[in-house]
Amino acid sequence: MDAFSKPLLMVLNGTPVWPPPLWLMRQAGRYLPEYRAIRAEVPDFIALCRDPVRAAEVTLQPIRRFGFDAAILFSDILILPWALGHGLAFKEGEGPVLPKLRDAAGVAALDPAKMASAVAPVMETVRRVRAGLAAEGFDHTALIGFAGAPFTVACYMVEGGGSRDFAATRSMAYSDPTLFGALMDVLVEATVGYLSAQADAGAEVLMLFDSWAGVLAPSLFRTHVVAATARIVEQMKRLHPAVPVIGFPRLAGLMVAEYAAQTGVDAVGMDTGMDLTKAASMVGEGVAVQGNLDPMALVAGGSALQAATADILIGLRGKRLIFNLGHGIVPQTPPAHVAALVEQVRAT
Amino acid sequence: MDAFSKPLLMVLNGTPVWPPPLWLMRQAGRYLPEYRAIRAEVPDFIALCRDPVRAAEVTLQPIRRFGFDAAILFSDILILPWALGHGLAFKEGEGPVLPKLRDAAGVAALDPAKMASAVAPVMETVRRVRAGLAAEGFDHTALIGFAGAPFTVACYMVEGGGSRDFAATRSMAYSDPTLFGALMDVLVEATVGYLSAQADAGAEVLMLFDSWAGVLAPSLFRTHVVAATARIVEQMKRLHPAVPVIGFPRLAGLMVAEYAAQTGVDAVGMDTGMDLTKAASMVGEGVAVQGNLDPMALVAGGSALQAATADILIGLRGKRLIFNLGHGIVPQTPPAHVAALVEQVRAT
Repeated sequence: MDAFSKPLLMVLNGTPVWPPPLWLMRQAGRYLPEYRAIRAEVPDFIALCRDPVRAAEVTLQPIRRFGFDAAILFSDILILPWALGHGLAFKEGEGPVLPKLRDAAGVAALDPAKMASAVAPVMETVRRVRAGLAAEGFDHTALIGFAGAPFTVACYMVEGGGSRDFAATRSMAYSDPTLFGALMDVLVEATVGYLSAQADAGAEVLMLFDSWAGVLAPSLFRTHVVAATARIVEQMKRLHPAVPVIGFPRLAGLMVAEYAAQTGVDAVGMDTGMDLTKAASMVGEGVAVQGNLDPMALVAGGSALQAATADILIGLRGKRLIFNLGHGIVPQTPPAHVAALVEQVRAT
Repeated sequence: MDAFSKPLLMVLNGTPVWPPPLWLMRQAGRYLPEYRAIRAEVPDFIALCRDPVRAAEVTLQPIRRFGFDAAILFSDILILPWALGHGLAFKEGEGPVLPKLRDAAGVAALDPAKMASAVAPVMETVRRVRAGLAAEGFDHTALIGFAGAPFTVACYMVEGGGSRDFAATRSMAYSDPTLFGALMDVLVEATVGYLSAQADAGAEVLMLFDSWAGVLAPSLFRTHVVAATARIVEQMKRLHPAVPVIGFPRLAGLMVAEYAAQTGVDAVGMDTGMDLTKAASMVGEGVAVQGNLDPMALVAGGSALQAATADILIGLRGKRLIFNLGHGIVPQTPPAHVAALVEQVRAT
């Protein structure tokens, strides 16, 4: 099977494949006992992201168990600001903790020259996963590299961590557009460099996670989600024309049509709340859709899971669909439910 | 000015009014020094909700300052489960804390017979506000009563408080639809009784806050948001045909069209992320729209606030618009920015 006959790449390049290619966001995660075993060896999350042997191993674990059509690099969207010299720590039960970037000095302190050496272990992971997929005979499985989209990364940097509504970030975008724009500019360029290095190392698809896109009012969404993503995609298409890009503007709602039409992405990831049939008609034939099973249906299993899965498969039958969840798989998901999902999708 | 010439009631009854009627979600709140003075007297939030003199006073405060077209009853959506005998406490900095409802015994323990006496002080507040508006000459200001929509109230009862994703609630909806349906049935009927009592006490408009509607996948949204709201509205239209209902399905995204078409509400509140012009065209001429200035634009003030306000006023000019925020006003909002907003909307 050559690269262009991998189902994920076919769908991203314009050809519907049925049954649709299938992978799950956060498929390398705590719901798998073999993942928990590796985490027990390296409790520090950043250290695991920078350990190419173990990071490659956890990336491959779900492929061995479920035969997914994509492996996604085990890493974190906050590795990028960390590689620019911004601090980062993960506190158990609290999520990420970063310095709060609130002024021009904070932007000036970011150092793109530091990035390449800081992310070298991530590129080694990409090479190892690509080689591992070939060595273990997963000829149909494509390797996805990724980054956080600049708005979402900026959210964490400005707030200093997670937040329900990212109020400080949104306030800065309104009250100091020059400062916020300068931060976004640095992140756009760094993201291009980071994704480009992943493609050089062997990533066959790239994905931009814009987890907090949905907190923005339309005017800010157009600037900091749509236009910022378009700048990245335009450069990536010049540097790596054969590498498709998937964008995931979570909670974009009605804005998904503008995102699909104006960013240049090859596919749009849809969150759980989206009516996938309607969303697919809004984005049009030129862009594939990815999603969007509710992770809680996967926790429930049984007839609820079957019905939710069937809804997606019936609604998108014959379209350019990449079957996925609408949000990351959660730790309490029984692996047997994942196996049942894979069986149902493959049998469609 | 008779009741039907109040601008809010005119818009809700089918007639566009320009400049549009204006009020702000959480307009009685901590951004006002006169509100903070009352809160200092009654630090316990539930006690304040059950103190008709002070609750009426804080309801009237923003009307005196800004002359809004609506006063909204000062209360909380969790007064309803509290009135059904479910526990409730507010912990400083933590938000609401409730017992976790996870089984049939929890549903059986809810006692609708307790409700009327428990909410009697709330009805006294409604009467006092209505009388106060008349006594102080606010002839153009309509009084809005409200409740949490049953799905959102169920979220807090099942989780035992706030949550980022209400995972336990969504899991229950999938894995035990009988139990979750029984809880929803109790809440639908109690909500009808609670809203009906508010209308009897003098509320001229009723609003249903479905703050967490957006966490649901489409199939669950149809059942627990659209159908549940339709059941409430259908009964309210029978009991109080002259009292319009505003629904606020926060983060509904693409589902807003089905919500507007199938619930029977007279207006749909739009959250900050909605493109209001597009949303208005999706809900059609038969339903008014309310919203949706970003509360962070109100914090920023100045040209950012002017531009965001103008976007809404230009996009909806001549339509059935109720100008509002897309989410509650935040404590750090300068009252002077609210005054500037009122001036701009009134001058349009």
